[in-house]
Amino acid sequence: MAQNHAVVFKKYAVDYPVIGEHLEYVATGQPPELKDGEVLTRVLYLSLDPYLRAKMRGHEETALFGRFEIGKPLINHGVGEVIASKNPAVPVGEIVYSFMGFEQYSVIPAGQYIEIIKNARQSKLPLSARIGVLGMPGFTAYGGLLWYGKPKAGETIYISAASGAVGQLVGQMAKHLGLRVVGSAGSDEKIAYLLNDLKFDAAFNYKKGDILTSLKSAAPEGIHIYFDHVGGSHLEAALEWLLPLGRVVMCGQIGDYNTANPPGVRNLFVCVPKEISILGFLVLNFNDEQKAVFEKDVTDWLLQGKIIYKEDITEGLENAPAAFIGMLQGKNFGKATIKVADL
Amino acid sequence: MAQNHAVVFKKYAVDYPVIGEHLEYVATGQPPELKDGEVLTRVLYLSLDPYLRAKMRGHEETALFGRFEIGKPLINHGVGEVIASKNPAVPVGEIVYSFMGFEQYSVIPAGQYIEIIKNARQSKLPLSARIGVLGMPGFTAYGGLLWYGKPKAGETIYISAASGAVGQLVGQMAKHLGLRVVGSAGSDEKIAYLLNDLKFDAAFNYKKGDILTSLKSAAPEGIHIYFDHVGGSHLEAALEWLLPLGRVVMCGQIGDYNTANPPGVRNLFVCVPKEISILGFLVLNFNDEQKAVFEKDVTDWLLQGKIIYKEDITEGLENAPAAFIGMLQGKNFGKATIKVADL
Repeated sequence: MAQNHAVVFKKYAVDYPVIGEHLEYVATGQPPELKDGEVLTRVLYLSLDPYLRAKMRGHEETALFGRFEIGKPLINHGVGEVIASKNPAVPVGEIVYSFMGFEQYSVIPAGQYIEIIKNARQSKLPLSARIGVLGMPGFTAYGGLLWYGKPKAGETIYISAASGAVGQLVGQMAKHLGLRVVGSAGSDEKIAYLLNDLKFDAAFNYKKGDILTSLKSAAPEGIHIYFDHVGGSHLEAALEWLLPLGRVVMCGQIGDYNTANPPGVRNLFVCVPKEISILGFLVLNFNDEQKAVFEKDVTDWLLQGKIIYKEDITEGLENAPAAFIGMLQGKNFGKATIKVADL
Repeated sequence: MAQNHAVVFKKYAVDYPVIGEHLEYVATGQPPELKDGEVLTRVLYLSLDPYLRAKMRGHEETALFGRFEIGKPLINHGVGEVIASKNPAVPVGEIVYSFMGFEQYSVIPAGQYIEIIKNARQSKLPLSARIGVLGMPGFTAYGGLLWYGKPKAGETIYISAASGAVGQLVGQMAKHLGLRVVGSAGSDEKIAYLLNDLKFDAAFNYKKGDILTSLKSAAPEGIHIYFDHVGGSHLEAALEWLLPLGRVVMCGQIGDYNTANPPGVRNLFVCVPKEISILGFLVLNFNDEQKAVFEKDVTDWLLQGKIIYKEDITEGLENAPAAFIGMLQGKNFGKATIKVADL
């Protein structure tokens, strides 16, 4: 078998991680012999998600998303082909979804959740969908919007990072539910995509001008829901402009992951007179019933063309560190995905 | 009739208000002639509440609690005796609860909510209860704890400003519901009261040492609910120490009312991995059914001696400005109340 390579985590990072210092693509020799219950996959796709950054933080007393192990590969959702197996439930040749190392060949430990993707080789949807629109980001968008945002037709929703892995779906689903949809993103190209392709009602480039001023102009009558990916100044502006009984669906705070001293949100007191709820949630705590509903709905919508999904695919594991850092800086356009190999 | 006096609002304040500059006790001449529908009250008790401070802020674009009118008396919940009436539903001699000016004689406008306190002269409970334990603060404590905090026996609740108008009730009610109750306050005398009189399980003086360190020591296994009156560093510490699925019942942010640049809450991102909800609410949006349940429960508990309620009564309207500023600085011990006159 060919030499394996991996993107290895080297050191906890306070500011933006640096290639070579905090993470690095390196040769790691032959994959190990499998033990009972283990599965060896040839990795096809790996997901890049902002929460991975939180696992690289070492300076807090508790790292709430868990931490990467120093000297080991990064780990995240992936899709791979089984090329060796000591797990009778997962035969060689199957295409599987599981947590995988950032490697060309990744061993899935005994007992870890593995899902066989049925008819994977015949599917009309790309394999990468399992880590995007039909995976964790899609489920986050669906569950966060429906079960936390509790949207009602006629309301207005504001979405930050609106062309990202989660935001683009939240926006399209909210449109189908009869909401007025406003998004922000960090480039004019992304704004054009939100308006022209995703049919958002309004969108603005947050790098051009004051966020609150732009938000007021995009949603002159106020907002009912804010779907937050960023925290910080975006959250402050949204709190200021939320209507009474407004909801903040808190999905992530990417703005705070790359600094030891985030600036802080200074206007939380408006939550009292406006009776605002700020609701943090984790997709991994949704239940199987919720998952089945999500998968059916979103698969149907995709096949019927009711929603579209933009991926930003980086080819080659060796390019994963730069793609990851680029995503933290908002350089990806669509769901950040690494294509490690062809099927 | 005697000359009337009032505590008049003079100027919007950024930092702590100053007597003479922002508010002042002044003679205001004879009360005006009543018009149809109006009621003249001899004011007996007035409530001092932290939210009044928010109505003195002028520098935001929107003052969310409304604003006091410059040159007019402060207005808040009060109890008074009707001494003249052009409202047939509210006869002379009745004791009423309503919003009243900070005056000796206050005109209640036509159409404003007025409640006649039945058997007021024979009640076993003090008249001041109507603006305290049986009024807005009591209802805030009851509704905030039950309907927003959703407490379960065996959980731990942390309450800031725990000897205050709302906090002392939240703590006692939580004890009755089988929770472990932890409070903080700003003097050793208040801490002794929480532990010895209100039977809190633990309490600490937030002025002595780091809040998070004190909280960890008072609640070593974490907290499920934080009842927030303060915001800022108290909220940061609570977010850090809340358990998964924790709730922040946000009742006020007194720490932020007296500065143009509150420090900001820097760790909101923990709401995502811990799935924390931050819930702002306003007592005035509870409905009549909820009010009836609250009044029955709390009246029963008071008469049965199951809860006690400490008031910090300042005698004389002329002392109201100093008492108000003292309350903003945490100098009151119990519910801050002005006694304007004897019945």
